[in-house]
Amino acid sequence: MQELFDFKLPFDAALEARIDHELAHKTMPLGALGQLMPLARQLALLHAGDYSARPSTQADAAIIVFAADHGLALEPISAYPRSVTWQMVENFLAGGAAINVFARSHAIELLVVDAGVDHDFGERAGLISRKIAFGTANCLHTPAMPPSQVHQALHEGARCVDLLLERTAVQWIGFGEMGIGNTSIASLMLATLLHQPIDTLVGRGTGVNDQQLEVKQAILQAVIAKHAASFEIQASSPARERALHVASLIGGFEIVMMSGAMLRAAQMRKAVVVDGFISTCAAVLACELNPQARVAMVFAHRSAEQGHRIALGHLMATPLLDLGLRLGEGTGAALAIPLLRSAQAMLRDMASFESAAVSGALLP
Amino acid sequence: MQELFDFKLPFDAALEARIDHELAHKTMPLGALGQLMPLARQLALLHAGDYSARPSTQADAAIIVFAADHGLALEPISAYPRSVTWQMVENFLAGGAAINVFARSHAIELLVVDAGVDHDFGERAGLISRKIAFGTANCLHTPAMPPSQVHQALHEGARCVDLLLERTAVQWIGFGEMGIGNTSIASLMLATLLHQPIDTLVGRGTGVNDQQLEVKQAILQAVIAKHAASFEIQASSPARERALHVASLIGGFEIVMMSGAMLRAAQMRKAVVVDGFISTCAAVLACELNPQARVAMVFAHRSAEQGHRIALGHLMATPLLDLGLRLGEGTGAALAIPLLRSAQAMLRDMASFESAAVSGALLP
Repeated sequence: MQELFDFKLPFDAALEARIDHELAHKTMPLGALGQLMPLARQLALLHAGDYSARPSTQADAAIIVFAADHGLALEPISAYPRSVTWQMVENFLAGGAAINVFARSHAIELLVVDAGVDHDFGERAGLISRKIAFGTANCLHTPAMPPSQVHQALHEGARCVDLLLERTAVQWIGFGEMGIGNTSIASLMLATLLHQPIDTLVGRGTGVNDQQLEVKQAILQAVIAKHAASFEIQASSPARERALHVASLIGGFEIVMMSGAMLRAAQMRKAVVVDGFISTCAAVLACELNPQARVAMVFAHRSAEQGHRIALGHLMATPLLDLGLRLGEGTGAALAIPLLRSAQAMLRDMASFESAAVSGALLP
Repeated sequence: MQELFDFKLPFDAALEARIDHELAHKTMPLGALGQLMPLARQLALLHAGDYSARPSTQADAAIIVFAADHGLALEPISAYPRSVTWQMVENFLAGGAAINVFARSHAIELLVVDAGVDHDFGERAGLISRKIAFGTANCLHTPAMPPSQVHQALHEGARCVDLLLERTAVQWIGFGEMGIGNTSIASLMLATLLHQPIDTLVGRGTGVNDQQLEVKQAILQAVIAKHAASFEIQASSPARERALHVASLIGGFEIVMMSGAMLRAAQMRKAVVVDGFISTCAAVLACELNPQARVAMVFAHRSAEQGHRIALGHLMATPLLDLGLRLGEGTGAALAIPLLRSAQAMLRDMASFESAAVSGALLP
């Protein structure tokens, strides 16, 4: 597991120069494709210059959805009952959820992982069982999970990526989640990881009204108060140690497992396509554990959840889409993957001014 | 041709209620897919409830690129020589431009139309020749085209859509363009159509620097001054008459032809996927000629061109993407078409809470 924390992605100055040269000579004014230009560059550098793969000949993208339950969801923090977590996992397996539809419409492979749902699914085709426990403990009263489970979740996340890469040579891996109450968990984790007041990070989550929002805010403040002394002791620890501590206190099996998966994906030079608020929380955690992971991250969209802006700002991330999505499941990642394909195809296939015999700009 | 100006898209209240019911019962919190929800609704209403088509079994989308030259481009308004228009058409035919790459990467059919390029292409496979003339006249000195050519361009545009629909049953038609100097032409057309000072609508176009921008602004002000008296006489005319007059004075064969094509596409209940600034100018012109066309329009992206915001605001349009693109060619439309596919697939294939046996929201 230490390798997940310590890997480095070697920088290739010659490759970078070659890519910049290629981009600068495409038949368009410099930068005319806006955000697609740095995206193409990032992907090409990440894949170490191998941008020859064509989506028509092989599966190029997958999305892994991690599902889990939260002890804190026994408190009234969500508009939905906790049973919706396993019911939605069933919906994923039956192919009827939004993420199934989007994955199918863009030929993206979908993996569903039980990271710790409070339900016995038995042996199920299409479900990858990596259950750490039947939900975390309630962090309003106790740490969400012992440190050993943090390590287990990170390790199992990395193994999910290994499993995927044994089966198919994808270049881009999107990360989604399902877990009733996990917007609250993500808010709490980000508040402690980024030293922000919890209020600035609490939003409506999925379908919470005004009155429910007040109740939710009070509960989250109580969680922060409960663990305040413990956070304070840790404040001067190294980032990695502090991040592992936050993961243990606040938890979220799906979030921690996703961080492990993101670290492995980055280590394997796969693009990590970060979805919405929860997925960005996992991205922040992954970057605290190993900042090298940031190099591999592409941010799919800016969600309607207010804490998302803060988390994106912390990572200096400019998301590709801003469609007011607030669903999770990896839906934003699925919608963004066609843009990754376009960016790579542009770098790979677009003519240069020379090759197409098009006159360049008249310089003044 | 009168039919292009007078068609109405019948409104079906029962269908609308059915679509709203279906959307409200999908397995997600109401509105959780943000801008994709109204998009799915618009597409379903436009296609009169037929949202069964699957991209895998048939070509569902095409992009038509209209190319033409402008008399005004003999003045120093562009960073590129006028010959780039025909050279880029050659690049389209060879498959090396950005729009070729994006169309291929998303299985979108691409049609290239010579609306009035100042070049003799001869008979060319893959080029649809609808040349009105070898470029417009220079509107700094004279009207860009006689009224008869405005009608001819609108008519030929409509015929291009007929041609496309004879060949393939697409649902979505994107509109792109190529024409050195056409950002200036679009600025001039929008200034007069929307009664805005020209300065607010003039941007850098494609690759213009500070010094060139000043020169460009002075030239465009001179064009406005030249035709001021004529615009004033027309100010009290009906919108349609005024729009035809503006098209004649300022011109743009590719822009006027695109408007005709947009009108026919809307008439045939195809989604009109509007690209960037120039394409939005054609959309404004089309809506002045027949406001019903607006119903069919989907706006692909907000371009970096400053006048684009004004034109989008006028049409009350919320674009899907905001990626800083400023290339034209229909590139933004090509990047947005996967989102249309997703929106339609969501409405068509996503489970309802009932069908998936997922608990709905707990109401307070």
